[in-house]
Amino acid sequence: MSLLQDTLQKIQQPDKKIEREIRAAFAQYGGQPADWGVLADLTARYAAARGTGNLTIPRKAMVLMAADHGVAVRGVSAFSQEVTVQMICGYLAGCAGANVMARHAGADMVIVDVGVKGELPDDPRIINRKVARGTADFACGPAMTRTEAVKAMEAGIEVAYKCVEKGYRLFGLAEMGIGNTTSSAAITAVMCNVPVEQAVGRGSGVGDVRLQIKKNAVYKALEINRPDRADALDVLSKIGGFEIAGLVGVILGGAACRVPVFVDGIITTAAALIAQGLSPLACEYMLGSHVSAEPAHQEMLAALGLPAALNLEMRLGEGTGASLAMTLLDAGIALVNNGLNGERPVL
Amino acid sequence: MSLLQDTLQKIQQPDKKIEREIRAAFAQYGGQPADWGVLADLTARYAAARGTGNLTIPRKAMVLMAADHGVAVRGVSAFSQEVTVQMICGYLAGCAGANVMARHAGADMVIVDVGVKGELPDDPRIINRKVARGTADFACGPAMTRTEAVKAMEAGIEVAYKCVEKGYRLFGLAEMGIGNTTSSAAITAVMCNVPVEQAVGRGSGVGDVRLQIKKNAVYKALEINRPDRADALDVLSKIGGFEIAGLVGVILGGAACRVPVFVDGIITTAAALIAQGLSPLACEYMLGSHVSAEPAHQEMLAALGLPAALNLEMRLGEGTGASLAMTLLDAGIALVNNGLNGERPVL
Repeated sequence: MSLLQDTLQKIQQPDKKIEREIRAAFAQYGGQPADWGVLADLTARYAAARGTGNLTIPRKAMVLMAADHGVAVRGVSAFSQEVTVQMICGYLAGCAGANVMARHAGADMVIVDVGVKGELPDDPRIINRKVARGTADFACGPAMTRTEAVKAMEAGIEVAYKCVEKGYRLFGLAEMGIGNTTSSAAITAVMCNVPVEQAVGRGSGVGDVRLQIKKNAVYKALEINRPDRADALDVLSKIGGFEIAGLVGVILGGAACRVPVFVDGIITTAAALIAQGLSPLACEYMLGSHVSAEPAHQEMLAALGLPAALNLEMRLGEGTGASLAMTLLDAGIALVNNGLNGERPVL
Repeated sequence: MSLLQDTLQKIQQPDKKIEREIRAAFAQYGGQPADWGVLADLTARYAAARGTGNLTIPRKAMVLMAADHGVAVRGVSAFSQEVTVQMICGYLAGCAGANVMARHAGADMVIVDVGVKGELPDDPRIINRKVARGTADFACGPAMTRTEAVKAMEAGIEVAYKCVEKGYRLFGLAEMGIGNTTSSAAITAVMCNVPVEQAVGRGSGVGDVRLQIKKNAVYKALEINRPDRADALDVLSKIGGFEIAGLVGVILGGAACRVPVFVDGIITTAAALIAQGLSPLACEYMLGSHVSAEPAHQEMLAALGLPAALNLEMRLGEGTGASLAMTLLDAGIALVNNGLNGERPVL
């Protein structure tokens, strides 16, 4: 059996009994658990996914998948493809927004090259799982082959397994890849059945002209490729990206190990939609973080059944919303443990 | 000149130039400052209020004002007035939700008795500024005299000044007082000019019968007292509470020292509405935290011009939303400082 198939088979139902127990633990503060709103929901969902009511603040990995997109040559982004490499160098230097936010959350960044076009520095901190030097332009034909899509997903699964081995018990999803909001919009149009007009947003500062180019590219991609919504692998390979496939792998690998993932903006949420298509059960291991300023994000999260705790009008991606949501979960776990562990600090 | 008058006169315009500079600092991450949404807004507003672009993670005080309400005898709350004392004992023990959340935010709790009815333990960690043993039932007449209202506000001002002396540079507002959502609803009806039906919510788990009692109490309070919206002190003394007056003092005292406050749920936001009535400039020193599940909260925040970063469907009060928002500001300050301070941690 392939790693992908094996992983899909390992995903089990979360423990609904533990979910109820953890919700009930919020009653220790006098009111109803529902008074704690999203904090109670998040924490109970996390515990059910983990399969234990004995919660500790989890070791956190922010898994950042990077790759390039053939469609970028059409000018769908305000940035050129070299920026993907530049941003990764920024992550290594620790000075990008994603780094600051991951540090804020106490998460370690795990950087994976699943398909960057340019030359990356030979640095042990970059996990090299390059499937190809960027996808093909999906406005002309499939972005990648089905085999490549599986290879990229399996890279993500292996990264997830390795992280779990190292003790990480919570993942945040992050990504970098110039052009990847175009791919996400195409996936959204298909998987959520929303009109292209609504699915395509401005991504990173796209003006009116580029916005139209972006919409045209998505129209063409759907027309030429005719991705089949009922076959998530078809959708992923035809109009996805390598980093999106890698993220699907992280979600599935995490779910197989009962390690939940925080989705972030529209790219990671597009990956979540593909993961849902491959395994509806995988959704139980997803946690919503924020609603970004992109127009379709709310609808994407709704399709996954994920409430998003934060509405900060952010449009960064790179795991920035997931980082903030991680701190909410920490607060929820601290609330549960207060009574159970009898912690009594000096005021 | 009285302490209150002196404090009101000290409140200055925040520094809009610094606000622009700090917003611009978010461009170091490649995109537009607006891509950082609320994080950029919060951080720039904080810096403008502080009057410096040289930001550090501030020392934080969660100021919890406690008092009782005469109107509680009508059964407006699901809890009896003794619970106010019990909750304060919980704060001292460090095991209440408010404690866990303040710790999560790295904030020290400052507990002030401005008018608790019951006997509190003689404990140096409780700042005793008791004006009276609870307010009078405002459904029969004024909750307190104008002199008492000023006294309670000045207690809050002095607490704020003392905290600033001790190095605190950010306040969170918190409160405890059985019956205080009824007083907040009455203040909201007057200051925001919203119908009583809309202003009164369920507070801490109030059922249909008590909800009607609560509405009737507010109707009577407004009919008998006829508070004058143009005179915030009139509103505060007639239908407010001692802890609300104390919180008004903390807001004004903080503003006079250029130390911003995070408002929390509807009680602290009611205090903010009174503070706005006394000094419109004071609003510039307020930061929105969350929108609670109470129906009128959004409208109250809108009247103050405060966006709320978090919508977590929480209805706790006690500074729990303010605590979470404090961590957002920390993230924003970390983002600004990354480039300026050249911090380069090992990945």
